[in-house]
Amino acid sequence: MASYLVTGSARGIGFEIVRQLAAKPDNEVKTIFATSRTENTRLKELTQQYPGRVIFVPITVGDEISIRNAVPSIETALADKGVNGLDVLINNAGIVGWTHATEMSMADLSDVFHINVTGVHMMIQAFLPLLRKGDQKKVINISSSVGSIARQPIYKSLPSASYKVTKAALNMLTVVWAQELSEEGFTVLCQNPGWLKTDEANSHADLPVGTGVEKVLENAKKVGQEGNGRFLNIHVPGWEKNPGLHQYDGKDLPW
Amino acid sequence: MASYLVTGSARGIGFEIVRQLAAKPDNEVKTIFATSRTENTRLKELTQQYPGRVIFVPITVGDEISIRNAVPSIETALADKGVNGLDVLINNAGIVGWTHATEMSMADLSDVFHINVTGVHMMIQAFLPLLRKGDQKKVINISSSVGSIARQPIYKSLPSASYKVTKAALNMLTVVWAQELSEEGFTVLCQNPGWLKTDEANSHADLPVGTGVEKVLENAKKVGQEGNGRFLNIHVPGWEKNPGLHQYDGKDLPW
Ligand SMILES: NC(=O)c1ccc[n+]([C@@H]2O[C@H](COP(=O)([O-])OP(=O)(O)OC[C@H]3O[C@@H](n4cnc5c(N)ncnc54)[C@H](OP(=O)(O)O)[C@@H]3O)[C@@H](O)[C@H]2O)c1
Ligand SMILES: NC(=O)c1ccc[n+]([C@@H]2O[C@H](COP(=O)([O-])OP(=O)(O)OC[C@H]3O[C@@H](n4cnc5c(N)ncnc54)[C@H](OP(=O)(O)O)[C@@H]3O)[C@@H](O)[C@H]2O)c1
Repeated sequence: MASYLVTGSARGIGFEIVRQLAAKPDNEVKTIFATSRTENTRLKELTQQYPGRVIFVPITVGDEISIRNAVPSIETALADKGVNGLDVLINNAGIVGWTHATEMSMADLSDVFHINVTGVHMMIQAFLPLLRKGDQKKVINISSSVGSIARQPIYKSLPSASYKVTKAALNMLTVVWAQELSEEGFTVLCQNPGWLKTDEANSHADLPVGTGVEKVLENAKKVGQEGNGRFLNIHVPGWEKNPGLHQYDGKDLPW
Repeated sequence: MASYLVTGSARGIGFEIVRQLAAKPDNEVKTIFATSRTENTRLKELTQQYPGRVIFVPITVGDEISIRNAVPSIETALADKGVNGLDVLINNAGIVGWTHATEMSMADLSDVFHINVTGVHMMIQAFLPLLRKGDQKKVINISSSVGSIARQPIYKSLPSASYKVTKAALNMLTVVWAQELSEEGFTVLCQNPGWLKTDEANSHADLPVGTGVEKVLENAKKVGQEGNGRFLNIHVPGWEKNPGLHQYDGKDLPW
C-alpha cells in the first residue's frame, strides 16, 4: 500500500521505475507520483493506463519553485486517498557532463552539481514533512559506481569529471541526511542501478534497463533501517565476478 | 629552489604556510606567491620582510576573472627570476557552512561548492600551463578528514553539511585531476592538515597551527608521484592512537 515519488520519470531508468511500480499489485504499491519536467507521450499513456494510480506532477529538479509548488498537489492527492504521508522518495533524475577535467568549465561543473546534488537536497528538504508522515520513510538516491572515489582506477578513461565529482558529493549528502534523520526512523541511501541499456546510445551497457530497475525496486522494498547511510549495489546472478568494469554482487560499494 | 602559490593566505593555515615557507632557505624555497582576496596588514608585513621572495597577488577563489588575471602577473614574476614554471600549487582557501542539512538552503550549498570545489578546479585549470613548465608539478589540495565519507560516524554531530559535501567533492575532483595528469608526471593530492588552532574560535582544536602546517609542508616537499591521487594525513608523534576524533598517524585517510 506504499506511495512512491520518482523524479526524472520521462524516460530511461525513471520511466522504467514508474512502469514496473505501476504493474505491481495494489496491496504493495498504491500510488506513484511520476514527476518530470514535462509529461511526454509515453508518460501520458502510462498515466492513462493507470488512472489515479500513476499521477503525473511536474517537477524540474534544481528549480526550487517547481519543487515547492509540487508539494501541496502531492499532499492533496495523498489526502484524497485517505493517507497523510509519502512513503518512498526516489531521486532518480540526473545528468552527465561529458568532459575531462582539463576541458571542464566552471559552468559545466556548477550546472551538473545543481541538478545532481543541490536538486536532490531540495527534493528531500521539501518533501520531508510528507515523508515524516509516511509509514516507510525511505529516500533512495540513485547514485552510480562511477561516483565511488575508491573505484576511480577503473573509470580513468571515462571523460565525465563533473559526473564523478557530483555523484561523490551526492553520496556524502546522502550520508549526512541519513545521520540527521536516523533517530526518526528514516532510511536514506545511495543505490547503484547498474550500467543499464536505457537507450540506443547505451546499447553496449551491461544489463537491460528492466533488469537493473527490478533489482533497485527489490532493494527499495526490502531494505529497512539497516540500509540507512549505505551505498547499495544490485545483485544480478552471474555478474558477481564479472572481470569487466562492474560486479553486481549485491555488496555495498566502497566510497 | 621551488616556487609555491598559496591561496587564501590572509590568515589561518594559508598565512602560516606562507610564513613557514618564507623562513626556509633560499636553495629550498625560492619564491612564494601569497594570494588572497586582499592584502591585509599581516600579509603586507610579510611581503615587506621578504621583498621579492614573498609576492602578494590578489586572487579571489571562485572568481574566474580574478584567477585568470593573476596568471600573467605570476608568469612575469617567475620570468624575472629566470624560471618558466610554477612548482607547487597549494589550494588552501576554503569556507565552512555551519548548518545541518535540514536547514541548508540551495544557496548555502552552491556558495560553499563554488569556493571549495569549482574555485579549486579553476585554479588548477588556469595555472596548468605554468605548472606544466615547473620542475615539481605538484598540486596540494587542502581537504579535511571531515570530507571522508567513511569517517562520517565520528562527525555525526558536526553541523556543517555543505562543508562535508564539498570536501568529499573536492576529494573526487583531486582524484580525477590526478588521473588525467599522471602521465605528465604530476602529483595531485588531498592533504588533511589536522584540526588546527587557527584562531580564538578554534582554540579547542587538536594542534597549534604551526605544527599542522609544518607537517603539511614536510609532506609537500618529500612527496613524489607515488602520492598522486591520494588522501594524505599528517603524522604527529603521540597522536597515532588518540582515542578522540582524530589520529594523526600519517596513514592515508579512507574516502
Ligand atoms: N543508465 C545507467 O547506466 C546509469 C548507471 C548509473 C547511474 N545512473 C543514474 O540513474 C539516473 C537516471 O539515469 P538514466 O540513465 O535513466 O538517464 P537518462 O536516460 O539520461 O534520463 C534522465 C532522466 O532525468 C530527467 N532529468 C534530467 N534533468 C532533470 C531535471 N532537472 N528535472 C527533472 N528531470 C530531469 C530526464 O528528463 P528529460 O527527458 O526532461 O530530460 C530523464 O527522464 C541518473 O541519476 C543516473 O546518474 C544511470
Ligand atoms: N583549521 C582547521 O582545523 C582545518 C581542518 C581541516 C581542513 N582545513 C582546511 O584548511 C583550509 C584553510 O582553513 P583555515 O582554518 O585556515 O580557514 P580560515 O582561518 O577560515 O581562513 C580561510 C582562508 O581562506 C580565505 N578565503 C576564503 N574564501 C576565499 C576566496 N573566495 N578567495 C580567496 N581566499 C578565500 C580567507 O581569506 P579572507 O581573510 O579574505 O576571508 C582565509 O585566508 C580550508 O580549506 C579548510 O577547509 C582546516
